[in-house]
Amino acid sequence: MVKAVKWLEKHLFGLEHLSADAITAVLDLADEYRPIALNPSTTTGTLKGKAVLNLFLEPSTRTATSFAVAAQRCGANVISFSAESSSARKGETLIDTARNVEAMGIDVVVIRHSAAGAPQMLAKTTKCSVINAGDGRHEHPTQGLLDILTIRQAKGRIAGLKVAIVGDIANSRVARSNLWGLKRLGAEVTFIGPPTMLSKTFEKCGARVLYDFDEAIGEFDVINMLRIQLERQTDALIPSLREYSKLYSLTDERLARTKPDCLVMHPGPINRGVELPSTVADGPKSVIIPQVSNGVAVRMAVLTLTSRVRDQEPK
Amino acid sequence: MVKAVKWLEKHLFGLEHLSADAITAVLDLADEYRPIALNPSTTTGTLKGKAVLNLFLEPSTRTATSFAVAAQRCGANVISFSAESSSARKGETLIDTARNVEAMGIDVVVIRHSAAGAPQMLAKTTKCSVINAGDGRHEHPTQGLLDILTIRQAKGRIAGLKVAIVGDIANSRVARSNLWGLKRLGAEVTFIGPPTMLSKTFEKCGARVLYDFDEAIGEFDVINMLRIQLERQTDALIPSLREYSKLYSLTDERLARTKPDCLVMHPGPINRGVELPSTVADGPKSVIIPQVSNGVAVRMAVLTLTSRVRDQEPK
Amino acid sequence: MVKAVKWLEKHLFGLEHLSADAITAVLDLADEYRPIALNPSTTTGTLKGKAVLNLFLEPSTRTATSFAVAAQRCGANVISFSAESSSARKGETLIDTARNVEAMGIDVVVIRHSAAGAPQMLAKTTKCSVINAGDGRHEHPTQGLLDILTIRQAKGRIAGLKVAIVGDIANSRVARSNLWGLKRLGAEVTFIGPPTMLSKTFEKCGARVLYDFDEAIGEFDVINMLRIQLERQTDALIPSLREYSKLYSLTDERLARTKPDCLVMHPGPINRGVELPSTVADGPKSVIIPQVSNGVAVRMAVLTLTSRVRDQEPK
Repeated sequence: MVKAVKWLEKHLFGLEHLSADAITAVLDLADEYRPIALNPSTTTGTLKGKAVLNLFLEPSTRTATSFAVAAQRCGANVISFSAESSSARKGETLIDTARNVEAMGIDVVVIRHSAAGAPQMLAKTTKCSVINAGDGRHEHPTQGLLDILTIRQAKGRIAGLKVAIVGDIANSRVARSNLWGLKRLGAEVTFIGPPTMLSKTFEKCGARVLYDFDEAIGEFDVINMLRIQLERQTDALIPSLREYSKLYSLTDERLARTKPDCLVMHPGPINRGVELPSTVADGPKSVIIPQVSNGVAVRMAVLTLTSRVRDQEPK
Repeated sequence: MVKAVKWLEKHLFGLEHLSADAITAVLDLADEYRPIALNPSTTTGTLKGKAVLNLFLEPSTRTATSFAVAAQRCGANVISFSAESSSARKGETLIDTARNVEAMGIDVVVIRHSAAGAPQMLAKTTKCSVINAGDGRHEHPTQGLLDILTIRQAKGRIAGLKVAIVGDIANSRVARSNLWGLKRLGAEVTFIGPPTMLSKTFEKCGARVLYDFDEAIGEFDVINMLRIQLERQTDALIPSLREYSKLYSLTDERLARTKPDCLVMHPGPINRGVELPSTVADGPKSVIIPQVSNGVAVRMAVLTLTSRVRDQEPK
Repeated sequence: MVKAVKWLEKHLFGLEHLSADAITAVLDLADEYRPIALNPSTTTGTLKGKAVLNLFLEPSTRTATSFAVAAQRCGANVISFSAESSSARKGETLIDTARNVEAMGIDVVVIRHSAAGAPQMLAKTTKCSVINAGDGRHEHPTQGLLDILTIRQAKGRIAGLKVAIVGDIANSRVARSNLWGLKRLGAEVTFIGPPTMLSKTFEKCGARVLYDFDEAIGEFDVINMLRIQLERQTDALIPSLREYSKLYSLTDERLARTKPDCLVMHPGPINRGVELPSTVADGPKSVIIPQVSNGVAVRMAVLTLTSRVRDQEPK
């Protein structure tokens, strides 16, 4: 049974403009869906007879698999395309992609794109639901939601919590989605990283900005360690990986100075030994694996809620 | 209910050798399937229990997605492979691919290949149905069929219509499939383009050849604008894109000189501002979106008709 | 009906450490599944409600398609990822992949990986069943099993048979899996190839080693021709392809000197004219096509047996 919820949109572009009620609606439904999310022999049936297109125009295994699993467990037909097989190469505009997808009777498009704002552009001229699976440096809203759900499950609440997000904030859509969602639900967010990866201007977005990880490490209820994008050119941003790890890795030593019930999070894939050592990633404070399971549940909830709004539209 | 039809083949290689009855059989069945094509919660069941392999050895989103959707809506199990994950790389011959696919209990292979004639070669040594999804510069028969269906829906007939196809004719399998199908049903086809992209020898195939777009623009019932392959080396073929657009783009100014009920078509993906501006692509004469929807319906009809012939073969 | 079998593992890493009973259990079940394997409208239902992830981190069409078909015919939900769309690129460790996949409620991971031992590493930290679809030069157990099944179908037994495996043994996981499986069931295995591709040390593994193909060609009940990896750098290993073919190709002339009932096998894809000419590949002694069909049946059996063990585990 799905409760009456305050969810009003057929798309999900980001968390920046979602109300607290809307975010809570996803979290509640995701909690309800968790047993189904973890059991491949069950389905919610909420997307039965619907076609979902998984359009990943940047490489991804984790998020693409998670969305495919989530759509299957809602009973949908799933069609997946990755970057290499896409006509994105041929320079097709997003507008035309949107119209074509709609004309083929697709109901939902899950899109990952290197350009910020691509999902909104896609949505502008289609009746499909559009779900943002990561757009440039802008947002990765289902990651934000699954992070927040994981925190809520462990802590029982979000309001009043102190959450640190550590790493290359400037390039992180995960950091942005977490910031908007957490603040909306009343948490206090601290961004931590080297000045080359973290501008003071983030304070205008409501984040506290710290350059010294050790300064306040004992204050946090949650520490979310972002992935260092080793495959990108980070040479200009950090003097060396060793130097970065020394200053910003969540080592055992640092972990010992956190609150006893501090949660350790990571959106994955982990660079073990860089952002954190295996002892911490696999240790008792880590909720990294529950994050992944919650990812399926949150995506099921998002697919269900957005589709329900779309179904109620005049045809 | 499927009518008794004059469809006799288990493969679809091209329109050049199809009878008018066979083409009409696809169009009629596609018309019947249109409501199902546009509704993911319905299925014809005509490929229930059958396995369809989507083998795209050239990049494609639109056609590959369309075939996947069509096969799903006929109730088939679909397995998709794109170029990058193929053993085509390893130099496997098409003969061996064909035999392997058959030995795995696959019923239908939808193939896109850079070599003209690849689908025929594939079919030669397999019991599978083989559907050509585009082979080199040879044919793209389901595109031809969906174009013809779109025209028939708008005009009520094909015989006697004047259809212009504009662009890089020499390199276009879409132009060839349209030519064969339209002529077979009694339309008159005019190819229009710069001499470097359009040889006089096409007259031997039954097309009228024009180098000046403006010369006869008021005569046509349909103008089908081909895509300029920006990703290919077109430097040698046209002095510049600006020059090309000036001479062969379907601008608002040119559109004003077409018949009041002239249809504007494009196989997509559109280079907006090159072949035609957005005002024309999205304007009242455009049937570009119905083309896409008809693509799913036509592919459902082709999958159904070819499979029915295959089922009647002695085992 | 599935017989009581001596199959005790929820993974399949290789044939080296499998008992004769375990191998026979797969072969028997595969024989039983053959009619279903070849008929897309039937299913064993043995993986109904289970999710199978096909994770191919090296290019493959044949094996990937075969596993996808096999999983479908066991009633599973299949999610496929190929190399290009994988976060393997991002340097995700296998440990994290394993945990994530498990956390998403995936039951079975079929993995192809360029590193020997990758499936074991993957299995170490997950509750999923892990099936090796080829790991580096180590093993390709389902290929070994389908080869052995094909021999058993033709000969009625394995024990006492003389099997030659010809080609680049050093780089072949197929040769290794065949060696372990065939020896366990009592066959005698001879490796044949140029010294650069075949070290004398293989004798320690129980194989007979020959450098002259003609020396004993009349003795063999089975000749399995390995594929020459033209896409790899074989320059250093053989003086020229022509020279290699002269010495190690199974030509018509050589075939005439084999036993009258000698089987010709090839794991595919064939380089026609290199390992063997078309006259031999498609001739009466060839069982290359039955190998492919048996591939689906063997993979269905492996998926079923491993999943059954997993289901009996304490949760």
